[in-house]
Amino acid sequence: MTTAAPTGRVIGTRTPKVDGVEKVTGRAQYGADVQLSGLLVGRILPSPFAHARIVSIDTSAAEALPGVMAVVTGADFPLPPPGTVTPWGTATERSYFVAQEVIARDKVLYHGQTVAAVAARTAEAAERALELINVEYEELPPVFDAVEAMRPDATVLLNDLFTKSPEGTATEPSNVAEQAVYERGDIAAGFAEADVVVEREYRTQVVHQGYIEPNVDSAYVDAQGNVTVWANTQGIFGQRRDIAMIAGVLPSRIKVIATEVGGGFGGKTTVRCSALAVALSRKAGLPVRVGLSREEVLRTAGPGNAIHCRVKLGAKSDGTLTAIEGSFVYDAGAFPGAPMRLSIRRVFSHYRSANFRVEGFDVVTNHPHVHAYRAPGGTPVAFALESTMDELARALDMDAIEVRRINVSRAGDPMPDNVPLSSVSLDRVLDAIQAHPCWTTPLEGENRGRGLALGMWTVPGGTASSHITLASDGTVALVLGTVDLSSTRTSLAMVAAEMLGVDMDDVRVVMGDTDLVGYSDSSSGDMVTYVASRAVREASLDLLGKMKATAAAHFGVDAADVDYGNKLFYVRGAGEMSIGWADLAQKSPVASGGALVGYGTVNTPSMNLGVLAPNAAAHVVDVEVDPETGKVELLRYTAFQDVGLSINPGQVEGQVQGGVAQGIGWALHEEYDFDDRGVLRNATLLDYRLPTSLDVPPIETVVLEEPSPEHPLGVRAAGQVPIVPPVAAIANAIRDATGARIRTLPMKPETVWRALEAQGG
Amino acid sequence: MTTAAPTGRVIGTRTPKVDGVEKVTGRAQYGADVQLSGLLVGRILPSPFAHARIVSIDTSAAEALPGVMAVVTGADFPLPPPGTVTPWGTATERSYFVAQEVIARDKVLYHGQTVAAVAARTAEAAERALELINVEYEELPPVFDAVEAMRPDATVLLNDLFTKSPEGTATEPSNVAEQAVYERGDIAAGFAEADVVVEREYRTQVVHQGYIEPNVDSAYVDAQGNVTVWANTQGIFGQRRDIAMIAGVLPSRIKVIATEVGGGFGGKTTVRCSALAVALSRKAGLPVRVGLSREEVLRTAGPGNAIHCRVKLGAKSDGTLTAIEGSFVYDAGAFPGAPMRLSIRRVFSHYRSANFRVEGFDVVTNHPHVHAYRAPGGTPVAFALESTMDELARALDMDAIEVRRINVSRAGDPMPDNVPLSSVSLDRVLDAIQAHPCWTTPLEGENRGRGLALGMWTVPGGTASSHITLASDGTVALVLGTVDLSSTRTSLAMVAAEMLGVDMDDVRVVMGDTDLVGYSDSSSGDMVTYVASRAVREASLDLLGKMKATAAAHFGVDAADVDYGNKLFYVRGAGEMSIGWADLAQKSPVASGGALVGYGTVNTPSMNLGVLAPNAAAHVVDVEVDPETGKVELLRYTAFQDVGLSINPGQVEGQVQGGVAQGIGWALHEEYDFDDRGVLRNATLLDYRLPTSLDVPPIETVVLEEPSPEHPLGVRAAGQVPIVPPVAAIANAIRDATGARIRTLPMKPETVWRALEAQGG
Repeated sequence: MTTAAPTGRVIGTRTPKVDGVEKVTGRAQYGADVQLSGLLVGRILPSPFAHARIVSIDTSAAEALPGVMAVVTGADFPLPPPGTVTPWGTATERSYFVAQEVIARDKVLYHGQTVAAVAARTAEAAERALELINVEYEELPPVFDAVEAMRPDATVLLNDLFTKSPEGTATEPSNVAEQAVYERGDIAAGFAEADVVVEREYRTQVVHQGYIEPNVDSAYVDAQGNVTVWANTQGIFGQRRDIAMIAGVLPSRIKVIATEVGGGFGGKTTVRCSALAVALSRKAGLPVRVGLSREEVLRTAGPGNAIHCRVKLGAKSDGTLTAIEGSFVYDAGAFPGAPMRLSIRRVFSHYRSANFRVEGFDVVTNHPHVHAYRAPGGTPVAFALESTMDELARALDMDAIEVRRINVSRAGDPMPDNVPLSSVSLDRVLDAIQAHPCWTTPLEGENRGRGLALGMWTVPGGTASSHITLASDGTVALVLGTVDLSSTRTSLAMVAAEMLGVDMDDVRVVMGDTDLVGYSDSSSGDMVTYVASRAVREASLDLLGKMKATAAAHFGVDAADVDYGNKLFYVRGAGEMSIGWADLAQKSPVASGGALVGYGTVNTPSMNLGVLAPNAAAHVVDVEVDPETGKVELLRYTAFQDVGLSINPGQVEGQVQGGVAQGIGWALHEEYDFDDRGVLRNATLLDYRLPTSLDVPPIETVVLEEPSPEHPLGVRAAGQVPIVPPVAAIANAIRDATGARIRTLPMKPETVWRALEAQGG
Repeated sequence: MTTAAPTGRVIGTRTPKVDGVEKVTGRAQYGADVQLSGLLVGRILPSPFAHARIVSIDTSAAEALPGVMAVVTGADFPLPPPGTVTPWGTATERSYFVAQEVIARDKVLYHGQTVAAVAARTAEAAERALELINVEYEELPPVFDAVEAMRPDATVLLNDLFTKSPEGTATEPSNVAEQAVYERGDIAAGFAEADVVVEREYRTQVVHQGYIEPNVDSAYVDAQGNVTVWANTQGIFGQRRDIAMIAGVLPSRIKVIATEVGGGFGGKTTVRCSALAVALSRKAGLPVRVGLSREEVLRTAGPGNAIHCRVKLGAKSDGTLTAIEGSFVYDAGAFPGAPMRLSIRRVFSHYRSANFRVEGFDVVTNHPHVHAYRAPGGTPVAFALESTMDELARALDMDAIEVRRINVSRAGDPMPDNVPLSSVSLDRVLDAIQAHPCWTTPLEGENRGRGLALGMWTVPGGTASSHITLASDGTVALVLGTVDLSSTRTSLAMVAAEMLGVDMDDVRVVMGDTDLVGYSDSSSGDMVTYVASRAVREASLDLLGKMKATAAAHFGVDAADVDYGNKLFYVRGAGEMSIGWADLAQKSPVASGGALVGYGTVNTPSMNLGVLAPNAAAHVVDVEVDPETGKVELLRYTAFQDVGLSINPGQVEGQVQGGVAQGIGWALHEEYDFDDRGVLRNATLLDYRLPTSLDVPPIETVVLEEPSPEHPLGVRAAGQVPIVPPVAAIANAIRDATGARIRTLPMKPETVWRALEAQGG
């Protein structure tokens, strides 16, 4: 295969989003825009209790209601235990619990959990049908605090959950799904040799991903049992896999078509609405749409998780870390699966130390089951680590940059699981800060402070497929298997245009479905730009190779003798023998033996390794705290980040600014406010306080481009890490401004005011 | 590439249609089932005149009506003259006239021709808007008879139409678009050496294809000008090409998705509704559906054409033909393009004669422009030839089979253009009749008669693409680029199942769109089974090759050493090294370097050659004629046909029976009844008399399978030729029953009664 390096003709230019106009003019087709003949309205019956046994469900009155076409309960879904080999796949612990999250079986485990669902001709009939479903519950004592849930005498939520730990799997059920331990060296000896030891505890809150479009999926099951799903999802193949296991359908009988996604941030990898729609449509024989209201989204769609954190750092007086210790209790909600390993492995790669021990606990409670939220778990873990690092610097009386520069990891240093970092530029990010006015300009005025925090993330890798079809008019259709969440279609079209030597106008992006494009992983964890760009590059090279072969046949020469450049295929050393791109394209559909199509499929190491393209970030924020109210105002915000290759600089900046804005909400405003029965009290966007334009200052982005050595184009990533440092940076700035260390999120006025009061105003 | 011969494990079995249940339960999605958010109602303003100049069109009042979102007239469409190179393709004479058929420019040329179109929020607003469009016409004298239209003093319809003939292109415009002449030998000498000469004239009528679903297409043009079309069409790529030229859009910016098609028979290769929907959506910024009412379908959607026929045959007294002469004047309606060459070349391949001259004229009139109708032109031409052959047999006092057996073409005999027939089994079809009870059983009773007629058709060839994706559960998705009109998806799935050695349940058929599958020609002229089966075969072999390579990598051997059979991949000579199909499939998505996909694209010679897989047929019919009323009753009908390979015998029989039923309607009932201003008087299905179950007797089919030598599976065709012989066979049977030769269609009671009266009761 020919190799071709990008020339920077398209890559690196500020290119408008190809889907921009559609989106700002309201024409793009989101989940609720799917219209189908005979489409039924699906509605969900929520559990009124956070923990209860389902004694019985009587749906007969609902089924008898005119206009009601289907009612489903847990009894309509299979529930193969983990390890069972079924025609639709092998059941895993994950599939087993996801299936119960989709619809309850013998127990409900959180307020709002789906107990039944109906499909009806009208919304009115559906709502009335829900009222007619008679469920008898036996209430059980709920467990809401993850630390309390770990106690030996705690009520056990799941009788088939046994703790996995380095010692093996427990034989008695408990609420701890997993204990992970990362260690090296001698942690006690490390603290013994330290001149300074700082240990702090932190509590973070449940937050929502804040996507604007509520979850809504539609499905149609035809008479042969073939399933079509219009899914508001981050991953069409993941949907297919999960729907297959949950609804009991051969995966190959399911076609998943992605709608546009109005925000996902990890929260739309779920399968609930789609699986319910499939089961309802199968019964009704008509297509069904199942959508959530805003309230249902907030209550039940799966928020980001809370963590109880403890971090202990030991250092020599010169600043060198001698020991790093941490303990993190993740509240996973009703089912296991908090992003524990994911976040500890990455955030605790910031610093190196010979003596290291960090443990994490994945704990179930009667809160809604958590889902991924951008750099899952990274923000609270970094809040704990970087706040403690700030305390350590103060204890050492060292500059925040200096203490970090001494200790940051470099290429070859071990991650928590002792896998060496391939390359990382934390040190260069610190250099960039030190030379930047955001750091060199003195901060003047009362009640003002400056905070710094690091962040680091890696790419999980995965599989992506793409193909590129040449049309006879010389333009190409770029078919992608990865869902577009953030206009990745634009950056991938730029890669194709660059590699093929054509203009952006010559590339039309087509979003494939599960039938029509090769397997591609979900769009999460910064996978798209890193992996799909490689697939697009391979497809481009494959197409160029086929076009060269066509040109060679045209000239009667060997394909190896044909070169390509400036939209011209020419025979090497025979200058007059050449044919233009457009002329060759026009010859292609029949003359060359069929349409010319280039194919690319790339596999990179999967999620469990997750050591690709470490991308370093650091944020610097200036704040002013109102001592009367505790309100925090952000004065200046600067984000530094190494993205490897900035394909479309405007989009990279947008990613950084978006991540920071979400981090600001997490730091200062947002929280799930549960009552003592586990009912969310603020399930509206009036009461759940997302940041607005008034809360977010202008965010300056400083982009570094240290190419990732493993990626043929040098791509690292841009989307996850911007949300990692903000909370810690703001906490450090508040400490700098006020002397008060806030260790409970959010740092809302009441919390800050109480902290100021506690230290005596 | 490995070759694999079908074992007959799936092919040749009576397999239920994979889409059968969907269709009989009303779940399949036809054109009118397409639902889109904000979908507007499109309506067409028809011309009230058959021939008039458009002086002016004022759309301002319509545009001002609340709810009206767009109005288009001819001024909104480009009209590049033939030969013009445009960004969206090179204009041809065909595209130039099709564009005028879609929407009139300076003239209207038939009653009902589109003059303007509107898109509105409601049907009421659209209808009212049509009334508000003010068109000023200047009526012109119409020409309705094709023979009269050929006269030098006839009113000329199209000032830019110049007769093409063997002498070249005329310099003065006329109504004759083309004169085709096929000749060999010395026609005068041929008749001179004949002992018997028979010459007859015939007139056939305009008939409708009789599809049940009215034409309806939807389109959406997004803010970038990307076009999506949901087309009720026989060919997605043909739609793309035509919409591009007519609406002025780069073909690669157009995605055409086929809906299910409720009958096409050649009549849904048109582009009118779709092109209007594109232009309306482009103006309105919202999706638009344009559909025809039943009345509009009958008046304007393009029926099958009428022909004025003359046939003269000369033979020795032993029956040997010495001369074949014919002249056929095709009424093409308002624009050129009657299926003249198509039908003459095929039907006049029935018989061989050293002296041969047949000419055809493609003539425009002020009738609606004709479109293809199943075996286009074949039925009326065969009616003329086979009726005259029957007369010749009577003049020679020879048996109808014997005179044909002496003269039928065999492999190597020339077609009218002197291209030799590759293989044909007309003689074997005659043998089959002679041994069958339909011929050997005497026909008893008064006013009864038996008729025989031959038919022959060939496959035009073309291009088809397909790919097959292996799912991890071991099933495959078969992606097709050819539209399914007659459950070709079933027979193509059977080919895949056969070639791959899997079960029908393991194959799911996916209909591709223009973005997601390789170029494929329209489903017409029996192309699908012949060409697409080859593409599916190639895709199957490609997939098997890739699976063998995967197995080889698994065993660490050379791919050439891996064999496949009984769902097992095994290393040749190493019996214990084997892996099952399902196990290999499960390993495929990631382990083998990506999803396993087999690709197939096949080009066979295109339409202009059209000599592939000659398929012979002969029909035998017994009738009883009521001498009081002239009503013809069909007593027994037997159809003999060589299909090469009967992939799904039930479907083959269905094709034959369907073609015969249409032929019966053509013979006895159907006709376009125009008034003297060119207005169709019977534009409803009550007045346009399609055959019903009461008119069609049980049709026995006798299927021969002489493999086509050019096709790897031996496929010939099944769909076109069954409509060719029925009219002639029925005419010959009426002659046998009554002594009256009917030479004007349809042979309705009045016509037959008048013929009986004319011969004196």
